[in-house]
Amino acid sequence: MKSFFRPQGCAVVGASRDPAKPGHQILRSMLDAGFPADRLHPVNPRETEIAGLRAYPDLVSVPGTVEMAVLMVPERALDAVLADVRARARTRGDLRALVVASGGYAETGTEEGRSRQERLVRTAREAGVRVIGPNCIGVIDTRSGVDTTFLHGVVHRPGCIAFVSQSGAVGAWFTQMLSSEPEPVGFSKLVSLGNMADVSMGEVLDYLRDDPETAVVGVYLEGVPRPRALLRSLAALSEEKPVVVLKTGRSEAGGQAATSHTGALAGPDRVWDGALRQAGALRVETMEDFVDVLRVLADRTGRRPDGSARPDLPRPPLRVFVVTHAGGPGVYAMDALARHGGLLVPARVSAETRRRLADVVPPYSSVCRPEGHVDMTASATPEQHAAVVSLVLEDPGVDALVTLDLPTRFLTDTAVAEALAGAWSGSAPGKVFLPVIMHGRWSAAGRAVLQRAGLTALAGPDRAAAVLAALARLAALDQGVRAGQGEDGVEARVGDGRTDAFPEPPAPERPPAPQAEGPPGEGPSGRAGRTLSEAESAALLRTAGVTFAPFRVAASADEVLRAAEEVGYPVVLKLCSAFIPHKAAAGVVRLDLRGPEDLARAVAEVAARAEELLGPERRPEGFLVQRQVPPGLEVIVGGLWDPLFGPVVATGAGGTRVGLDSPLLFRLAPLTGEEAAGLAREVLAELGVEEDRADLEALAGVIRGMASLLASRPDIVEADLNPVVLHRPGEGAVAVDALVILAESGPRERAGGGDRAPRSSRPPA
Amino acid sequence: MKSFFRPQGCAVVGASRDPAKPGHQILRSMLDAGFPADRLHPVNPRETEIAGLRAYPDLVSVPGTVEMAVLMVPERALDAVLADVRARARTRGDLRALVVASGGYAETGTEEGRSRQERLVRTAREAGVRVIGPNCIGVIDTRSGVDTTFLHGVVHRPGCIAFVSQSGAVGAWFTQMLSSEPEPVGFSKLVSLGNMADVSMGEVLDYLRDDPETAVVGVYLEGVPRPRALLRSLAALSEEKPVVVLKTGRSEAGGQAATSHTGALAGPDRVWDGALRQAGALRVETMEDFVDVLRVLADRTGRRPDGSARPDLPRPPLRVFVVTHAGGPGVYAMDALARHGGLLVPARVSAETRRRLADVVPPYSSVCRPEGHVDMTASATPEQHAAVVSLVLEDPGVDALVTLDLPTRFLTDTAVAEALAGAWSGSAPGKVFLPVIMHGRWSAAGRAVLQRAGLTALAGPDRAAAVLAALARLAALDQGVRAGQGEDGVEARVGDGRTDAFPEPPAPERPPAPQAEGPPGEGPSGRAGRTLSEAESAALLRTAGVTFAPFRVAASADEVLRAAEEVGYPVVLKLCSAFIPHKAAAGVVRLDLRGPEDLARAVAEVAARAEELLGPERRPEGFLVQRQVPPGLEVIVGGLWDPLFGPVVATGAGGTRVGLDSPLLFRLAPLTGEEAAGLAREVLAELGVEEDRADLEALAGVIRGMASLLASRPDIVEADLNPVVLHRPGEGAVAVDALVILAESGPRERAGGGDRAPRSSRPPA
Repeated sequence: MKSFFRPQGCAVVGASRDPAKPGHQILRSMLDAGFPADRLHPVNPRETEIAGLRAYPDLVSVPGTVEMAVLMVPERALDAVLADVRARARTRGDLRALVVASGGYAETGTEEGRSRQERLVRTAREAGVRVIGPNCIGVIDTRSGVDTTFLHGVVHRPGCIAFVSQSGAVGAWFTQMLSSEPEPVGFSKLVSLGNMADVSMGEVLDYLRDDPETAVVGVYLEGVPRPRALLRSLAALSEEKPVVVLKTGRSEAGGQAATSHTGALAGPDRVWDGALRQAGALRVETMEDFVDVLRVLADRTGRRPDGSARPDLPRPPLRVFVVTHAGGPGVYAMDALARHGGLLVPARVSAETRRRLADVVPPYSSVCRPEGHVDMTASATPEQHAAVVSLVLEDPGVDALVTLDLPTRFLTDTAVAEALAGAWSGSAPGKVFLPVIMHGRWSAAGRAVLQRAGLTALAGPDRAAAVLAALARLAALDQGVRAGQGEDGVEARVGDGRTDAFPEPPAPERPPAPQAEGPPGEGPSGRAGRTLSEAESAALLRTAGVTFAPFRVAASADEVLRAAEEVGYPVVLKLCSAFIPHKAAAGVVRLDLRGPEDLARAVAEVAARAEELLGPERRPEGFLVQRQVPPGLEVIVGGLWDPLFGPVVATGAGGTRVGLDSPLLFRLAPLTGEEAAGLAREVLAELGVEEDRADLEALAGVIRGMASLLASRPDIVEADLNPVVLHRPGEGAVAVDALVILAESGPRERAGGGDRAPRSSRPPA
Repeated sequence: MKSFFRPQGCAVVGASRDPAKPGHQILRSMLDAGFPADRLHPVNPRETEIAGLRAYPDLVSVPGTVEMAVLMVPERALDAVLADVRARARTRGDLRALVVASGGYAETGTEEGRSRQERLVRTAREAGVRVIGPNCIGVIDTRSGVDTTFLHGVVHRPGCIAFVSQSGAVGAWFTQMLSSEPEPVGFSKLVSLGNMADVSMGEVLDYLRDDPETAVVGVYLEGVPRPRALLRSLAALSEEKPVVVLKTGRSEAGGQAATSHTGALAGPDRVWDGALRQAGALRVETMEDFVDVLRVLADRTGRRPDGSARPDLPRPPLRVFVVTHAGGPGVYAMDALARHGGLLVPARVSAETRRRLADVVPPYSSVCRPEGHVDMTASATPEQHAAVVSLVLEDPGVDALVTLDLPTRFLTDTAVAEALAGAWSGSAPGKVFLPVIMHGRWSAAGRAVLQRAGLTALAGPDRAAAVLAALARLAALDQGVRAGQGEDGVEARVGDGRTDAFPEPPAPERPPAPQAEGPPGEGPSGRAGRTLSEAESAALLRTAGVTFAPFRVAASADEVLRAAEEVGYPVVLKLCSAFIPHKAAAGVVRLDLRGPEDLARAVAEVAARAEELLGPERRPEGFLVQRQVPPGLEVIVGGLWDPLFGPVVATGAGGTRVGLDSPLLFRLAPLTGEEAAGLAREVLAELGVEEDRADLEALAGVIRGMASLLASRPDIVEADLNPVVLHRPGEGAVAVDALVILAESGPRERAGGGDRAPRSSRPPA
């Protein structure tokens, strides 16, 4: 990989004298970025000089070392160039890296394009050369002066942010956002991957993990064929450096044809959501959040002794203080923070701080009314700004400070900025300080002052609130889901330490069927399914350690009554029929039956209802009599074999509330004990249940059991335990219903071996 | 009011030679805005000339007409200036308008400040002069050259947007956002109202309704003491011109001490939400949405024959098409649109349009895969942009078009912009076209080209999606909630036409109690309450036309059995106790009792449970036996007497789901039939229920009955009907439980006569 970022020499094959051509602009970009002109070699059979550089007719004739070549050649010229690559490998053996910027490959969706891409990769492999692309804009390294792109307005300022993008255009958008700031924001590397015919995103992430010039990594992701491999790289990287991911494709449809709740609610985006979290990567929704969070993390590296950008903040909610001299925007900012309820709260400073604040602010100022807020009034001077900021940052009750300034003709943006920068320079390194100087072109100079002081100047209060909420989520990821450093009793009891994350799923048991479109009604994994009876389903899940409420299956009313005596009243009566997977909704369940009379009547009612539902032809398989479980918190624990991710588990609100109050949370199976405990904790938080109200440990056990079963049994297409009733801590978790669908004909395609259809039939670009 | 916008002459009292003083900058602003120098008069007793203008020692000695005076004077000088105001009124009678920019009045929260403000208003009234402020930045009129502010960077370009702000700083923020666009955005008027000691926000809105220079109005609102008066003005204005409201205070706490569900969920912000909707005003969350929506509406005026900005779009969802030459940002944009699910959908063009699109795009383009999306690839020319845009805008299946461009060195921002502007100029005026040229400083010239062509150039795909969603909400307001033009059968049947909206609530029946803090546990209206029994509550609500499931109250088990025979099995049994307002949650309700045996056992169980809950001292009042209602959609219909708004009704998900799945929707009572029908329709939409599944008309009747009752009975503190069971259309709505809390001691304060405590103890500023 190093050859892409620090090549000894670079040839641009397809260089052009025409400034309107990419083949010209790539040379310009390399020169603008500071690549040594004597190691930059245009290749064009019809030119002798381009952009002041000596041009060569082909790759073989370039003198000196050519460690990297950028190809910007028309489709018809490819094979000649590939011959040159082979020849150069044979004769000089110096070429290690190819950036193929041109298009016309697999992204076209044509057979011709695919075959061209295959020839490219085969030739490169034979020649010992790695390929980034094709159909990409390639690589920027601000320190070595590599810039193989033809972008407009890139400022090659060294910084510690690396950006890895599946789309060249999003790479361009990113650099334009950085360079449009009043003080252009630096970065270390940009890699646009295009078709990923050879070098994968995971390989680049692995490289960045050890790159001393990179402290923070941003990833733009559309979709990859082997997500587990990518997730392994993300997980390894996020152990070392914060990773922020912008993943598009939220609007892709989910598997609506599934039988189970879990299957029906498992859109690929929901699984990505859980998998990215599992890998310790912070997912954000918008490009603005993406850039602003990366900027704030990058600016933090300058404040931390170890040069890391790890947020190192307390568990959410972050305690945020707002300082302003403008009443309306102050109220607006408190609203913006309140919108991120669970993550951000107003900071309460000590009585001493409050007293000292009151001493330094102008008359009529409002101090801590409401909490977490000082309005200094429009008469505040730069000195008063500085004094208030210092006091607030020193208070141990404050995690983050936002200042809001609206420059006037009496208080200029630069005067405010210098005061804020001065107050910041002496303050505690752990805190977050986001100064907002409002809006637009009139405050560019002030914002530049702040940026030069290592502060991230944001464009408005909404931006500050969004970034703080993202930092709080990142802190939660670091402290909760990922690390589990054993401080937590539950994790220690359930857990067995962190194992290698994201193993490849086991191979399917039968050979893949042809990739034809399946009939409607099949499972989300594109496999035909056989629904097991509740008793069979429960038997299977018992092998995974799941506890069920005692039950018996009975064929007649008499057997039902005997069964009830055995399991003990009160009981629940359910109809058994493979045609009715969701029994409660179908009205063939009777609860709270306290004696034989109740039960006998219920049998009659359910039998009548069954006839209504099934018609005269189909007979129910019998009745299931189950000991009624005392009430508790109802959750669902489910699993499915996803065509892209392989085995996946899910949990969320259960009973009749599945998917209604909150989305299901997904994770890739299998799970470590820590991961299962983290997920259990997350689902309780999502449902607003205090941890002392439900047996977290027991839920983690069920989740982990489900995950292990799914991971070891690729023939399980879908599975629901719904509900699992959680009792108080130490009192356990009892499943009262189970639904398992087994593959009938084997998986249609190797899990992890093929992507879902992308939104657009075009490739990432 | 006209004297504030087009004064014959203007004096600035407190003018200063020091450019660092507001008293100087106000003169500069007036001159910059183009106010005639010969009608602008600095007043300062120690100067003879300021900023090149002849200065006068006092207001009386200024020659010529002085229709308006701006006061920027220290607190101690006020009384002398007021004497001058009186003298000028007596001697010249020309002064009509005072803008009091200085602070030190009621906003300080001091007795002295309040008294100073009273003297100001009294003097002005006696002198026949109206006052804007104090503690404001005053007025800008871009056409007459009035600018009483001391803001930095205002571009006085005439436009059709008026902005009315309770905060001067938010006014400044607004103008800076407009003037920071590549082509500064014009506006008609800006009014900063400050303390609103005399001129209210409603009066300014009334003036703007008839202002020919204003087509669109933006309002920044923090809170007002008499919201119904303001809402009347908003409703009248929104009949004529689109109104966009940014209302802060979302984070204010609600009335958590209430007994009823409605009371507990009625935070002031939720009521504002409903009331603004009722007034036909579009509420937005962020300053960016606010400015962008106003810009788009303003740009539409140039395209409409009547010069109006009314959106005139079909009912949501809007059908949106995305055209791009950049794959990744295109995928990103589809995601951003999908986030506004119910409001925006991908547009499907005709097969003919699709064919013609395929003919004009470059090879490898993706046309309508997915629907509503064309990716022309990076090789698209300006001509191809124009051709695609024209085809899409002509297709009748498209309501709105978003183009995404990322300028390169081969396709400049200006070339793209000119192509887009050309295609737009000939297209259908009803459509919305939001061109996005991405990001930052590198595309400013291109965006300026678009703006000059009457297009709103936005900064990114998220902005376009947010604006389109807001337009869709505005269209829904126009078509659904507000207008009800009689096309709709339900409205025609239930409704009695639109009456005057927002009448002042009736006076309370008893004199207000002292404004002391109430004890905890009292109702949200700050009044002590007496909880009526279910039977009493139902009797009261029956007078409002609400239908209840038949019930009887019984004292003993025998009476219960007799009562059940009367109402008919199956029945529901409920305990009657004023100490248990929420019976189902307390476990003293038994459903689905099908015969005397069931019932007898239930009586025993409920009695036992009652003893558990109430203890040995308190006895329940008896049992309520009610005919069990067939299942249907459960909603809550509630009401309360809000201390700020007076009578308010609410509706939403009912039964045990109140407030869980979706927020309650509020409206100010009373309601017209149309308003009640609109609210009923909205709640079904909120709950995701198709209109053919529930009796909309019956629900509207219940809502309207509740509203009428509340409006006529100020002694009703809170009321819940929960649930009201809705059956299919034509089959009615039956309430099965009622809870009414009556005032015991009369309202503590006149409704509408006092504001809730603002978030900050400081005033809007």
